[in-house]
Amino acid sequence: MIVEIICVGTEILMGNIVNTNAAFLAEQCASLGLTMYHQTVVGDNPVRLMDTVNQAFIRSDIILLSGGLGPTQDDLTKETVAEVFGLPLVEDSRSMELLKEHFKRFNRPMTENNLKQAYVPMGSIVLENKNGTAPGIIVEGDTSTAILLPGPPNELIPMFHEQVLPYLRKRSDRCFYSAMIKIAGTGESAAETRILDLINNQVNPTIATYAKTAEVDIRVTGSGQTEGDAKAVTIPVVEEICSRFGKEVFTLEEQEQLEDVIVRLLKEKNETVSTAESCTGGLLTGRLVNATGASAVFNEGYITYSNESKIKNLGVKAATLNRFGAVSPQTAMEMAFGCAKAASSDFGLSVTGIAGPEGGSAEKPVGLVYIGCAYKDQCEVKELKLSGSRQKIREVAASHALRLLRETILNSMEK
Amino acid sequence: MIVEIICVGTEILMGNIVNTNAAFLAEQCASLGLTMYHQTVVGDNPVRLMDTVNQAFIRSDIILLSGGLGPTQDDLTKETVAEVFGLPLVEDSRSMELLKEHFKRFNRPMTENNLKQAYVPMGSIVLENKNGTAPGIIVEGDTSTAILLPGPPNELIPMFHEQVLPYLRKRSDRCFYSAMIKIAGTGESAAETRILDLINNQVNPTIATYAKTAEVDIRVTGSGQTEGDAKAVTIPVVEEICSRFGKEVFTLEEQEQLEDVIVRLLKEKNETVSTAESCTGGLLTGRLVNATGASAVFNEGYITYSNESKIKNLGVKAATLNRFGAVSPQTAMEMAFGCAKAASSDFGLSVTGIAGPEGGSAEKPVGLVYIGCAYKDQCEVKELKLSGSRQKIREVAASHALRLLRETILNSMEK
Repeated sequence: MIVEIICVGTEILMGNIVNTNAAFLAEQCASLGLTMYHQTVVGDNPVRLMDTVNQAFIRSDIILLSGGLGPTQDDLTKETVAEVFGLPLVEDSRSMELLKEHFKRFNRPMTENNLKQAYVPMGSIVLENKNGTAPGIIVEGDTSTAILLPGPPNELIPMFHEQVLPYLRKRSDRCFYSAMIKIAGTGESAAETRILDLINNQVNPTIATYAKTAEVDIRVTGSGQTEGDAKAVTIPVVEEICSRFGKEVFTLEEQEQLEDVIVRLLKEKNETVSTAESCTGGLLTGRLVNATGASAVFNEGYITYSNESKIKNLGVKAATLNRFGAVSPQTAMEMAFGCAKAASSDFGLSVTGIAGPEGGSAEKPVGLVYIGCAYKDQCEVKELKLSGSRQKIREVAASHALRLLRETILNSMEK
Repeated sequence: MIVEIICVGTEILMGNIVNTNAAFLAEQCASLGLTMYHQTVVGDNPVRLMDTVNQAFIRSDIILLSGGLGPTQDDLTKETVAEVFGLPLVEDSRSMELLKEHFKRFNRPMTENNLKQAYVPMGSIVLENKNGTAPGIIVEGDTSTAILLPGPPNELIPMFHEQVLPYLRKRSDRCFYSAMIKIAGTGESAAETRILDLINNQVNPTIATYAKTAEVDIRVTGSGQTEGDAKAVTIPVVEEICSRFGKEVFTLEEQEQLEDVIVRLLKEKNETVSTAESCTGGLLTGRLVNATGASAVFNEGYITYSNESKIKNLGVKAATLNRFGAVSPQTAMEMAFGCAKAASSDFGLSVTGIAGPEGGSAEKPVGLVYIGCAYKDQCEVKELKLSGSRQKIREVAASHALRLLRETILNSMEK
């Protein structure tokens, strides 16, 4: 079944707000195995809105529209859809009742223009809006169905979950099974090269790669008559991809991030980590702590920007800094050991580098970063040569440090 | 001049990422006084992409495309646009040179598929990509111009500012002058209410508000026959808005962030700041250090997640933690004083709170955060009651802490 999204609103066209409704609806549709080819944003203009709806009407089975259902003159979505479907607008008595109740409850006078919110295309399914005044509407045509949702996310999201999702599940003619494979530390094109034969031969399941910060996610989606059929075609491809990337795969859970995996592994081991950051300046720890329950495995971190701070807080030797510099494998190692010692933690994770745009030299250019991970009397240090803006270098360095931490934890579990 | 946006990428259609590029490009176009009627998202499919580009070609003067310029097989934007414009792809020697340099510099093997990034439609203007491998491209047709930009925001944004903006300015038939007013710590609707009379009466200049994280940006855009005319209608409105918000306005510079202002002010004062973070876990310092040149004013920060760490590193009293708890104004104050003392810095900035989703209680619910800023023997503490996801609460808390730091610096300058 082909679905498309039309978001109505001048505030999106002007860039005043980011279109999070589209992302929400798209993700929900993907999880239902619906095929989406188009998303459109159009303003509150009757002619252009009509053109857009007409076009969608021809090419898609289901059109999800958000916005333009309110009481004002430029709210035209419902009127336009009714015209495309050739249906008159009629009063919905239940909606009228709820509308009057709403204004009574909040003790506000109901201006005349509000009444239009209780009118719906004849024969349509009305979706109650528990968080606002404009109801949602489902209009089933001969070939295409339009689902009209209010624009505010706090109205749209619960309405979708509670009323639209069950409706769409009932409508779906095929079953889909979608699996996610997340890989740390590989670039998108390098990852793709390693599974190019699978990508080139894909039919069912489909394979898609998504580039994240120092991470590639691969989505494999199969379809079939039953959920079992869909799963049966998907699993062998997932297993093949996993076997090619081996330990680089850090999770198969859609919602799980690298930091969640690390916190989970450390909890399993009943061990802790501490951090020592220079150029990342808190970003690395900020990501680690983003995992719910991080407090069980993380007590403290040090942001040691200056040499003095590295000496004082982490016990890095002045001689090391003088001889090799703050951005060196030796300093990264002493920082990693130093924070583990200072925090009495099992693992110590460090980052030191040149994020730029200033501070680079021929010998040590902007983008040179060392990451270190200490565990007991061992410490692994890696050199990174990164490119991009100051922020990009710092974000990628933090991702690589998390990857190194995960590898070190896994290695410690094998011993 | 009519402009439209086409974002290419299955990951947007699948809802894997939120389309922030469209919001960025839309805001920039609005600031140039360009008229936008359509934004479209389409996947990496040659037929549908072709249809979408053809349609835009007919109805818009300028088409901004993002995504699909990379090295992989499904990157088809350039190939499709070249076909619509009837132009062959030819090697751009400068791009080829930069591409080879890029891989050489990072000592990575260049796989064959990367080469296609150096091919451009014949006669087009090539935009250098300083943060990635795929160059941007401007293709000027008889009636319509296509501007192709890379998908990753850290590549697209600087390329737009440095190369596309000047191009579009030159192309515009009217002169526009756009000013930005950035305000910290006010909600969008509260800010709007304070200038509602100006918004309701706007003709030239136009006034648009943009909600950011604990920040509202107000853009004022005037137009005229000459740049002088445009500026002359804009400036009085900017001055009126600035007088209404007073010290809440932290900058009038488009590119300047709150952390840049703080680093600039501290440099002027020749003073330093240190940080003590609990729930934000490094995010606050991560933002501060994002400002170029932060090393001049920041030496070290402490991420003190556990009570022990607060006691050991910051000298927070065990009695304070026992009596008032880790999330309390008293602890926030001792953390702020403590980090300033430990780091021998002039200002000490602290955050402690409950980011959730666990750890809340009736008395201290999720979202309760205290921020403190110490300077000499004074310390101001503020209570925040925030809502949203764990990450949202932490990001907003970090923004409010930076705002408090700025206010404290400004107050210290008045004395």
